[in-house]
Amino acid sequence: MFRPEIKVIDCTVRDGGLMNKWQFDDTFVKQVYHALAEAGVDYMEIGYLSSESAFDRNVVGPWRFCGEKDLQRIIGDDEKKIKLSAMADIGRIDYEDIPVRSEGSLDMIRVACYVHQIDKAVDLAHHCIDKGYETTINLMAVSTVGPRDLEEGLNDLAKCRVPVIYLVDSFGAFYSEDIEVLARMYMERMPDKTIGIHAHNNQQLAFANTISSIISGINYLDATLYGIGRGAGNCPLELLLSFLKNPKFKVRPLVKVIEEQILPWREKIDWGYFIPYMVSGVLNQHPREAMACMESDKKNQVTEFYDQMTSVASGL
Amino acid sequence: MFRPEIKVIDCTVRDGGLMNKWQFDDTFVKQVYHALAEAGVDYMEIGYLSSESAFDRNVVGPWRFCGEKDLQRIIGDDEKKIKLSAMADIGRIDYEDIPVRSEGSLDMIRVACYVHQIDKAVDLAHHCIDKGYETTINLMAVSTVGPRDLEEGLNDLAKCRVPVIYLVDSFGAFYSEDIEVLARMYMERMPDKTIGIHAHNNQQLAFANTISSIISGINYLDATLYGIGRGAGNCPLELLLSFLKNPKFKVRPLVKVIEEQILPWREKIDWGYFIPYMVSGVLNQHPREAMACMESDKKNQVTEFYDQMTSVASGL
Repeated sequence: MFRPEIKVIDCTVRDGGLMNKWQFDDTFVKQVYHALAEAGVDYMEIGYLSSESAFDRNVVGPWRFCGEKDLQRIIGDDEKKIKLSAMADIGRIDYEDIPVRSEGSLDMIRVACYVHQIDKAVDLAHHCIDKGYETTINLMAVSTVGPRDLEEGLNDLAKCRVPVIYLVDSFGAFYSEDIEVLARMYMERMPDKTIGIHAHNNQQLAFANTISSIISGINYLDATLYGIGRGAGNCPLELLLSFLKNPKFKVRPLVKVIEEQILPWREKIDWGYFIPYMVSGVLNQHPREAMACMESDKKNQVTEFYDQMTSVASGL
Repeated sequence: MFRPEIKVIDCTVRDGGLMNKWQFDDTFVKQVYHALAEAGVDYMEIGYLSSESAFDRNVVGPWRFCGEKDLQRIIGDDEKKIKLSAMADIGRIDYEDIPVRSEGSLDMIRVACYVHQIDKAVDLAHHCIDKGYETTINLMAVSTVGPRDLEEGLNDLAKCRVPVIYLVDSFGAFYSEDIEVLARMYMERMPDKTIGIHAHNNQQLAFANTISSIISGINYLDATLYGIGRGAGNCPLELLLSFLKNPKFKVRPLVKVIEEQILPWREKIDWGYFIPYMVSGVLNQHPREAMACMESDKKNQVTEFYDQMTSVASGL
């Protein structure tokens, strides 16, 4: 039997955009939007919410900003078909640039932060709550946080008004056993919160770790079409909906939009399982070096990359 | 701490050969052989053991036969560096074509069978034991076997002299929970046997299911370099050795041989995560239709494939 509390959040445009500077055209974003709605996905995270001054529109596409005009072009004249979410990075959005919810098209704002930024994240998320939004705080790179800092961070989060706190495996370093232990810790420290999972696929464990999360009681599940996302990518949405039992979910619209919009991008950008990403995941390192390797002409010189990364990791 | 009973069996040439009719040249097989030995892998499954009359050497490469001359070219003049295994299919090897172990280079023969072939598999495996070999029986496509047939099959296997029985997820259809349930059943029905796992990666769960197997007490673990293998491929060996704690295992030789020998094949044949394989895995179907789709000019027409397969699966 399915668990009605489970919500699925598609991050195709937001996390996938980290691979192409959000250069998805409107046709892409519209087709993803309609496919997700038809598939019964609960939220579409359509990009990052940023102030116009934070980035240059000549360099990054519209989904680095999620301006209301951009959103309106996708929604068109019909009623909105799926809840829309945007991610906010601390320091890249001025509070006054966040519209009141009732005046815009976004439903949820998810604040991403590292453990030392929790106070700032809570402040920003509270501001969003006061403007009418659903909110989450996504605590990134937990695989690098020591037990004392994590305990303190979770205790702080437990006291805030944000209802959903995410466990984020930014580096794709976790095994399912890590997820079980952390999920238990999150739920014990924050008994009033809903917990979410955002997994990366460096070790081909994003889907498996999302399943472990479900079994552990986590209810907000992030995924992307065909796993598109930074580096090794994310939990593939089509696998997740095939696994979930809720009859409202339909897989066919996902397969169709993968054929029409995602496979063409597969020819242009490399997300998924590649040795550089596997190495950074195993070593619990940020994927930036692996991404640089994949974008260079040394993409296939994986032994050299392995040697570099293992000497960095061991401090040699 | 590591579990010394765990043995890792590389199936790169045997299972990977299902994608290219075993057309690996000697340099490929030699480099894989040396890399596996250096990495501390326990067995190299170098191909299938077949009678010369069963296949045409003009159509399939030498590793469909594993003749002693073929093996000798790989081993060379030095002492053998790693135990060698070959898989035997029922009906494709005449008993008289199997040499006595002491007269050849193979150490282990693994007999693959479907549930209705268990009697024949036991007979062939006993013959191999009597010729001095280590043996396993690999019970394929268990995801399609009903509980009564499986119970009877496991009871028969429990009585035989073969020490290792494999759980084979031929279609990549299992979730970790299925593995846990089946592992328990295998161990309860066959308390004197060692259990093995051979997973396929249709749902990106081959590595996760191999970890679940380890946790469930399974000790023989199949994997391949970069996951090469039929359809979606197998559990990637480099991920498995990175996970296992035994200090005898080394990952670098695997990365090196992937760079030098596997990545060039990646340009020529498509194993791994593709929508046709995902669909056949989710539907618990043999990958033959998905492989035919991937080899056709309709490789990217995945919606049409999905529609075909779902109407087949639902009997429409």
